[in-house]
Amino acid sequence: MREECGVVGVVQFDEEPHPVPSALRIYYALYALQHRGQESAGVTVHDGKEPHTLKGMGLVPEVFNKDELVGLKGNVGIGHVRYSTSGDSRIENCQPFIVKYKSGNVALAHNGNLVNGYELRDQLEAEGHVFVANSDTEVLAHLLVKELLKYDPVEAVRNVMKQLNGSYSLTIMIDDMLMAVRDPVGFKPLCFGTIDSGYVVASESVAIDTLNGKLLRDVNPGELLIFRDGEIESYQLFEEKYCAHCVFEYVYFARPDSIIDGQLVYKVRERIGERLAREHPVDGDMVSPVPDSGITSAIGYAKESKIDYEESLMKNRYIGRTFILPGQAMRETAVRLKMNTIGQNIKGKKVVLIDDSIVRGTTSRRIIDMVRNAGATEVHARIGSPPIIAPCYLGIDMASREELIAAHKTIQGVEAVINADSLGYLSVDGLVESIGIERDHLCVGCLTGAYPVEIPGEDMCQRRQLKLNEF
Amino acid sequence: MREECGVVGVVQFDEEPHPVPSALRIYYALYALQHRGQESAGVTVHDGKEPHTLKGMGLVPEVFNKDELVGLKGNVGIGHVRYSTSGDSRIENCQPFIVKYKSGNVALAHNGNLVNGYELRDQLEAEGHVFVANSDTEVLAHLLVKELLKYDPVEAVRNVMKQLNGSYSLTIMIDDMLMAVRDPVGFKPLCFGTIDSGYVVASESVAIDTLNGKLLRDVNPGELLIFRDGEIESYQLFEEKYCAHCVFEYVYFARPDSIIDGQLVYKVRERIGERLAREHPVDGDMVSPVPDSGITSAIGYAKESKIDYEESLMKNRYIGRTFILPGQAMRETAVRLKMNTIGQNIKGKKVVLIDDSIVRGTTSRRIIDMVRNAGATEVHARIGSPPIIAPCYLGIDMASREELIAAHKTIQGVEAVINADSLGYLSVDGLVESIGIERDHLCVGCLTGAYPVEIPGEDMCQRRQLKLNEF
Amino acid sequence: MREECGVVGVVQFDEEPHPVPSALRIYYALYALQHRGQESAGVTVHDGKEPHTLKGMGLVPEVFNKDELVGLKGNVGIGHVRYSTSGDSRIENCQPFIVKYKSGNVALAHNGNLVNGYELRDQLEAEGHVFVANSDTEVLAHLLVKELLKYDPVEAVRNVMKQLNGSYSLTIMIDDMLMAVRDPVGFKPLCFGTIDSGYVVASESVAIDTLNGKLLRDVNPGELLIFRDGEIESYQLFEEKYCAHCVFEYVYFARPDSIIDGQLVYKVRERIGERLAREHPVDGDMVSPVPDSGITSAIGYAKESKIDYEESLMKNRYIGRTFILPGQAMRETAVRLKMNTIGQNIKGKKVVLIDDSIVRGTTSRRIIDMVRNAGATEVHARIGSPPIIAPCYLGIDMASREELIAAHKTIQGVEAVINADSLGYLSVDGLVESIGIERDHLCVGCLTGAYPVEIPGEDMCQRRQLKLNEF
Amino acid sequence: MREECGVVGVVQFDEEPHPVPSALRIYYALYALQHRGQESAGVTVHDGKEPHTLKGMGLVPEVFNKDELVGLKGNVGIGHVRYSTSGDSRIENCQPFIVKYKSGNVALAHNGNLVNGYELRDQLEAEGHVFVANSDTEVLAHLLVKELLKYDPVEAVRNVMKQLNGSYSLTIMIDDMLMAVRDPVGFKPLCFGTIDSGYVVASESVAIDTLNGKLLRDVNPGELLIFRDGEIESYQLFEEKYCAHCVFEYVYFARPDSIIDGQLVYKVRERIGERLAREHPVDGDMVSPVPDSGITSAIGYAKESKIDYEESLMKNRYIGRTFILPGQAMRETAVRLKMNTIGQNIKGKKVVLIDDSIVRGTTSRRIIDMVRNAGATEVHARIGSPPIIAPCYLGIDMASREELIAAHKTIQGVEAVINADSLGYLSVDGLVESIGIERDHLCVGCLTGAYPVEIPGEDMCQRRQLKLNEF
Ligand SMILES: Nc1ncnc2c1ncn2[C@@H]1O[C@H](COP(=O)(O)OP(=O)(O)O)[C@@H](O)[C@H]1O
Ligand SMILES: Nc1ncnc2c1ncn2[C@@H]1O[C@H](COP(=O)(O)OP(=O)(O)O)[C@@H](O)[C@H]1O
Ligand SMILES: Nc1ncnc2c1ncn2[C@@H]1O[C@H](COP(=O)(O)OP(=O)(O)O)[C@@H](O)[C@H]1O
Ligand SMILES: Nc1ncnc2c1ncn2[C@@H]1O[C@H](COP(=O)(O)OP(=O)(O)O)[C@@H](O)[C@H]1O
Ligand code: SF4
Ligand code: SF4
Ligand code: SF4
Ligand code: SF4
Ligand SMILES: [Mg+2]
Ligand SMILES: [Mg+2]
Ligand SMILES: [Mg+2]
Ligand SMILES: [Mg+2]
Repeated sequence: MREECGVVGVVQFDEEPHPVPSALRIYYALYALQHRGQESAGVTVHDGKEPHTLKGMGLVPEVFNKDELVGLKGNVGIGHVRYSTSGDSRIENCQPFIVKYKSGNVALAHNGNLVNGYELRDQLEAEGHVFVANSDTEVLAHLLVKELLKYDPVEAVRNVMKQLNGSYSLTIMIDDMLMAVRDPVGFKPLCFGTIDSGYVVASESVAIDTLNGKLLRDVNPGELLIFRDGEIESYQLFEEKYCAHCVFEYVYFARPDSIIDGQLVYKVRERIGERLAREHPVDGDMVSPVPDSGITSAIGYAKESKIDYEESLMKNRYIGRTFILPGQAMRETAVRLKMNTIGQNIKGKKVVLIDDSIVRGTTSRRIIDMVRNAGATEVHARIGSPPIIAPCYLGIDMASREELIAAHKTIQGVEAVINADSLGYLSVDGLVESIGIERDHLCVGCLTGAYPVEIPGEDMCQRRQLKLNEF
Repeated sequence: MREECGVVGVVQFDEEPHPVPSALRIYYALYALQHRGQESAGVTVHDGKEPHTLKGMGLVPEVFNKDELVGLKGNVGIGHVRYSTSGDSRIENCQPFIVKYKSGNVALAHNGNLVNGYELRDQLEAEGHVFVANSDTEVLAHLLVKELLKYDPVEAVRNVMKQLNGSYSLTIMIDDMLMAVRDPVGFKPLCFGTIDSGYVVASESVAIDTLNGKLLRDVNPGELLIFRDGEIESYQLFEEKYCAHCVFEYVYFARPDSIIDGQLVYKVRERIGERLAREHPVDGDMVSPVPDSGITSAIGYAKESKIDYEESLMKNRYIGRTFILPGQAMRETAVRLKMNTIGQNIKGKKVVLIDDSIVRGTTSRRIIDMVRNAGATEVHARIGSPPIIAPCYLGIDMASREELIAAHKTIQGVEAVINADSLGYLSVDGLVESIGIERDHLCVGCLTGAYPVEIPGEDMCQRRQLKLNEF
Repeated sequence: MREECGVVGVVQFDEEPHPVPSALRIYYALYALQHRGQESAGVTVHDGKEPHTLKGMGLVPEVFNKDELVGLKGNVGIGHVRYSTSGDSRIENCQPFIVKYKSGNVALAHNGNLVNGYELRDQLEAEGHVFVANSDTEVLAHLLVKELLKYDPVEAVRNVMKQLNGSYSLTIMIDDMLMAVRDPVGFKPLCFGTIDSGYVVASESVAIDTLNGKLLRDVNPGELLIFRDGEIESYQLFEEKYCAHCVFEYVYFARPDSIIDGQLVYKVRERIGERLAREHPVDGDMVSPVPDSGITSAIGYAKESKIDYEESLMKNRYIGRTFILPGQAMRETAVRLKMNTIGQNIKGKKVVLIDDSIVRGTTSRRIIDMVRNAGATEVHARIGSPPIIAPCYLGIDMASREELIAAHKTIQGVEAVINADSLGYLSVDGLVESIGIERDHLCVGCLTGAYPVEIPGEDMCQRRQLKLNEF
Repeated sequence: MREECGVVGVVQFDEEPHPVPSALRIYYALYALQHRGQESAGVTVHDGKEPHTLKGMGLVPEVFNKDELVGLKGNVGIGHVRYSTSGDSRIENCQPFIVKYKSGNVALAHNGNLVNGYELRDQLEAEGHVFVANSDTEVLAHLLVKELLKYDPVEAVRNVMKQLNGSYSLTIMIDDMLMAVRDPVGFKPLCFGTIDSGYVVASESVAIDTLNGKLLRDVNPGELLIFRDGEIESYQLFEEKYCAHCVFEYVYFARPDSIIDGQLVYKVRERIGERLAREHPVDGDMVSPVPDSGITSAIGYAKESKIDYEESLMKNRYIGRTFILPGQAMRETAVRLKMNTIGQNIKGKKVVLIDDSIVRGTTSRRIIDMVRNAGATEVHARIGSPPIIAPCYLGIDMASREELIAAHKTIQGVEAVINADSLGYLSVDGLVESIGIERDHLCVGCLTGAYPVEIPGEDMCQRRQLKLNEF
């Protein structure tokens, strides 16, 4: 499963340049959000006169060097880490995306996906707009500039949001004014807090922690924040009836130490494990996580089931970009390179293996085979989320419907493919209750096939959001 | 605590070049041993006519690229990863170290430290030898070549070993003949196993696992193995009375999934945790590891104490080489960048914090402060090893005596410095019993100040090894 | 004196992919034009479906590698090398500049400078256009796309040209259709020729030579060429009364082996030398060039004056990007690093030193001092162009008016500053006659202060071009 | 024809660190010697306590960066640039070569080739020496250290020289003492001069010029210089009967502005051109050089013959490392990329083409074909050296005997192969007289097949040097 994006915004209200430059703070915050995107990273700061940008392909420490960062002058700035995709990973698509227009500069960092991105781009092209990249972010920039030519920033953002369908957590700089926007249903996380003499906005609260800041709260769905003259102005541009927080942030994406929409991810995962133990008990000898994503749920499962928590798989902490040659032998080596079995722990045992989710099933199969070969007498798979039966259109690049194993097979079918002695998925209710947020305020589109926003060719869920024209 | 080195040797006995080139297998094995050294990496293979080498500064994936690796012809080879040190990290010191002499080439990869390295170098220099690097490995190469001019490989190795005092686990190629040697008391690990149509020798069994190989056994202390003509020849060159296996391999260095001298590291650490719970019980609300080194012992402590295992610290998986600016605020940022607290788990709790060892005490202090600031009412430190009171001369670059906090302070003193509500170190007996090897066969030099080999200015332990001239 | 830009276009009309890929041909052509720009280089090819681009900062061999180039599929493409400037050398400003719009893609490579570039940008911004870079090329792209939404390519280009004031030699791809455009007065060179089964357009004929092609002719001022279906279509969109070919292409910029607007640069420079010998004879012992720019004129001067041609200065062929420390001693080292005197040739001689032009005078001063210190009894400076008294607004980044020594000093004043025994500049008439093109068809703006196009705050020359609104 | 190596030594006798660090001066000197080697570069300085080295593959500006260079502390140092060879271009072979031995460090930089290098290596290996590289320099280091263990530096050098057969111009540091040595017959150039408060030794005087120094004189063949305590000590260790200065330094290798053994290279080449005009007059319309190596001789030929000097070939100044695809068309492109014809100058002319030498003849053939295709009615080749009929064993990697066209063909044969209307080689006497040094003091081994030192399997010239055992 591929990860998505992370956004940051920092403003410092001192007269003098702050001892820790904004660019450096953004750099640290991006480090804390690195798990949200490893393909590219970027920082744009504004010194009151003009913006300065550093961006490039690679991990945060590869893209930035100290001298360049410290040389980026400005008390306000935004940052971005971008997920890895095989598709269109060109330097032009790196963010922040900066444009110049009549009245100045606009810089944007975006996490999410516009369902009507292509439509909007077509409309803009029909009006004569030209594009240099192929990202939603460029579309957002053009829409925003168009409105800024006629309206003040608040109206401009409102008018842009009226046209958007999809997920977006944004940090924006209009010249040196920092703003943050979250879509009306709050798909993707976005929160803010204080740092000494300033503020920070970020995709996850861990970025605020890293800066020794204090989390104030989540940005509300539909809310626009403007950080101006030492103050935070809040504009609730859209009053949502229901939210649609992505459940997979809790299940997999977010760091366990982040608090998202009021819920500590660690606690959610632990409750998932406990619930899973109740929904799918098994008479096992040991409970083991598939590291790292299964760890916290496995702790919960062990606690609830009173079965010993014991590691059976060890993950190589150093596996980054590697390469393998073609051939079956090599493919197995590749798996072993990433994950090794601890034979003595497993031998002769009935192992309860906890993972967060199953996408294609191929990795699960390989891992279960490894555990069996290491001597387990039984392997029972317990999954901390319901079957993924439909694709995500809201910013998570998981897999196409064809590739999703649970879109085509019954649970028994999946059990057979992954070669488990038994397979237990968490129920949708179980997941919702573990998260601790009402189902009406969560997106479970990929788990049910019914989405909280209108998606051409897909169902719309009952307690649905307003359509665009109803705003 | 800095890590040390890892060595590998691979031989494939097919006539034809094997589908998976030896160089590639060594590369994978080094990946599995990356935790033993992140500063440099190298591979030397021999194609029957001449050796070919790739080495450089950096992590395994940084040093090697696919095209170059696959181009390295040869069915036999050795590899090395080197630990990170501020001192003398020049390209000349990268290993394998290859020399040409009268009869051909010798390549060596070394893990360990010669106590009499400088002495031997002086002797060689007095005889007119010249050196290009400043490593023990170069001394070993010169000694070996000197003997090879007069003796066959087995006698040559025996004669070299007679002169050595210290730790050494070596993989050696004399032209295209692979050898492995372990010092007479077996300080550092070294084991070997089969792979399809060949053999692999490595510092830890995880390297064998990664190649889908089968661990045969540890190389015996004092043993020389020669892999020749499809066979393994064993020469027990020195029959040791006592071994001196380094206990810190179990406590900290080795990967948990490695089996060293018959003991699975994971199990040892778990027993350490259990024993620690008995030696230093505490009425806590939760048991938490300092990740990653405290994880397995914390699992054991929790099991034995029946206190809940709960994470209180989250480690950033992506922190590699970063940089910070001077200043107090920045130093705190650096700690937070690496490790974050999970406030909701900790708040109002009595936390039992498990780590493997305390060297200088500064990191422990910072971590305990962080946990306190996150709301813990009490923080009880439990350490999976006895106090380190003396330096290591056998290959582990921990710290000088001046820097070792326990060399100068009582346990109460350390407790005060690290700001713990209570501090409990594992006893030496506790450690020995957890490892499951008789004390007489372990090195505990840094824990007692009495070393298993003669070290100028330090005590020699009772059940001592033979001195050099007694061999 | 900084150099400017070079453009290339290549089309191959074979069905099958041509044995030498277009991208590779463009690469070779850019190599031949490297003297026109060393800061960045880029290639865009189109495979019939979509464009593919490689660009980056640095010299041609630094930007492109073989594998990437050969992987760029497409039978048609354009290329660009960009001059070195301290100002705004960001990756965004690298060319070709590619935009997507309603009907497809447009890629442009531009050599020249728009006098009304900022004005046009302001107009576009007022209409809501947003920009990502700050180059004229982006303005050209927006203007062209705007017209393409309403008109066919020929009309679109005509409409764009109507709005432009300044110099532009362009290669353009609208999807996979190659076009070439030269401004109505032909400031900058642009020519085209045949290669096997296709065509090549380039800033200088040496690029055609390098591809073993045959120069057909210069693109006419005001002409649009479309390379379509194996044919060249010519559209003379503007019928100019006078041309305004930049004289500095002949004096300095272009390669001696290029033929520009019918004149071989080498021959022009030789005639400059001969004329200079007649205008400013001197009783010298030897004629020496300041290498490389003075070489050809020095050959001409020697021939005409019958004084021996002898080298007195040797240029280091390897000086690229170097660095010096602050301080006087170091600055002298920097000059010596680039250029050394040949003492024995100079000693006791009256040296006639030929250079192409004087901009600031500082380098001339240093060189003359060096020649004196090497033992010359007299140093007579002879310059192959008239005094530069005004800045260039048409694409040559020479210097500001303040920095131009001849804008503030008489010839005697300059003579004193550069410490020459005598100084002789070529007359404007001498230059014009050496070039062999009527004065009315040349730009001599920087030599007279009267420009062939309207420039705010500067004079307009008599035989002036039509103003925009007169077209 | 490949180039060879360049060596440098710098010492500054100030108490305080000198304003321009020695490392920086060496860097500038290497820049001036870059034409002698483009494969690798290195600097070693000594700060009184220990040596510090920077070296690597590539051109001088690629290997060194400012911060690292300025950080290299020490008032004394040596440097090296190494020629490009396809064979054994490994980092281990980069110079300076530094070894540690009993009493300290020895660093060497070597230009030349030992005829008995392998023999000496065999002897050393038989004595138990081990080697890490495969260069003569390592052999020299071992020999020197061996003697230094028994003798003072002067005796040590003398004893080493007694064992050497071949060419060597060396700069050496024994700890922080700088020395320079030239072989007894002075094959390769080596000279020294003053810089402010110190001295510089270098392969060519241009390096001294670049440092604003003053050439004192050449190092005598057989001389050892020691730069100690602000003084230069001279030891004439061997009193040679005849010298054997390499004539190809004058013909091709050295920079024209260098003075070698009293002769300015520029003047020698000019005289070569004049002599060639007398030996091989031709009724041509123009005299043209093959740039760059033919330029100075062409100036001389033109002067003597009174035929106009006119360029017919233009060399691309930017061609560095490029790549071409296989195939005939591409090979021609590669030639055109490097060198272009100036058609208008050539058309209908009888061209006298001057080059320095012919090695394989393939490039000459291609160039003459190009000139013909550009319209020349006749092409007469005049070569500034006699036919090369034998290989060089003294440090110039020209070609093997098989590849040398003149080793197998008569002059008419060569004329036919290169497709010239006529071909004239300079006579050996003509060359000797142009150089201005008696034939007895020059090496002309590759021109006659009789070498000034004993070479197994080759003739020894009459006026021969003493054999080793006669010293
Ligand atoms: N690939 C691996 N997988 C799991 N654990 C590992 C791996 N490599 C090393 N370890 C363990 O990680 C611990 C070191 O972790 P930690 O203390 O977090 O590192 P640090 O050295 O940065 O303090 C050691 O106990 C070691 O055994
Ligand atoms: N810095 C971090 N520290 C701890 N856990 C993290 C961190 N970043 C991400 N995670 C968690 O790691 C999990 C991903 O681990 P894993 O499944 O092993 O990765 P992969 O994507 O390679 O399968 C996610 O659940 C995520 O929440
Ligand atoms: N820095 C320099 N300046 C001028 N001439 C040089 C310089 N360095 C080397 N040369 C001369 O250039 C000639 C080599 O030029 P050329 O034949 O064009 O090169 P090659 O054929 O090796 O590419 C030699 O005669 C050499 O003396
Ligand atoms: N490839 C080339 N071959 C020969 N001459 C060139 C080449 N490229 C540019 N030139 C000429 O070199 C001159 C610039 O040389 P010079 O004055 O030495 O450079 P600089 O710009 O460093 O002062 C120009 O006159 C230009 O026409
Ligand atoms: S469809 Fe699934 S992954 Fe996508 S936003 Fe909704 S819950 Fe999250
Ligand atoms: S002294 Fe300590 S670290 Fe060193 S080998 Fe002995 S037990 Fe291991
Ligand atoms: S002003 Fe001068 S440099 Fe500019 S285009 Fe005219 S002649 Fe050329
Ligand atoms: S053989 Fe030729 S190239 Fe070699 S040193 Fe003698 S003259 Fe020079
Ligand atoms: Mg996972
Ligand atoms: Mg640790
Ligand atoms: Mg010039
Ligand atoms: Mg040449």
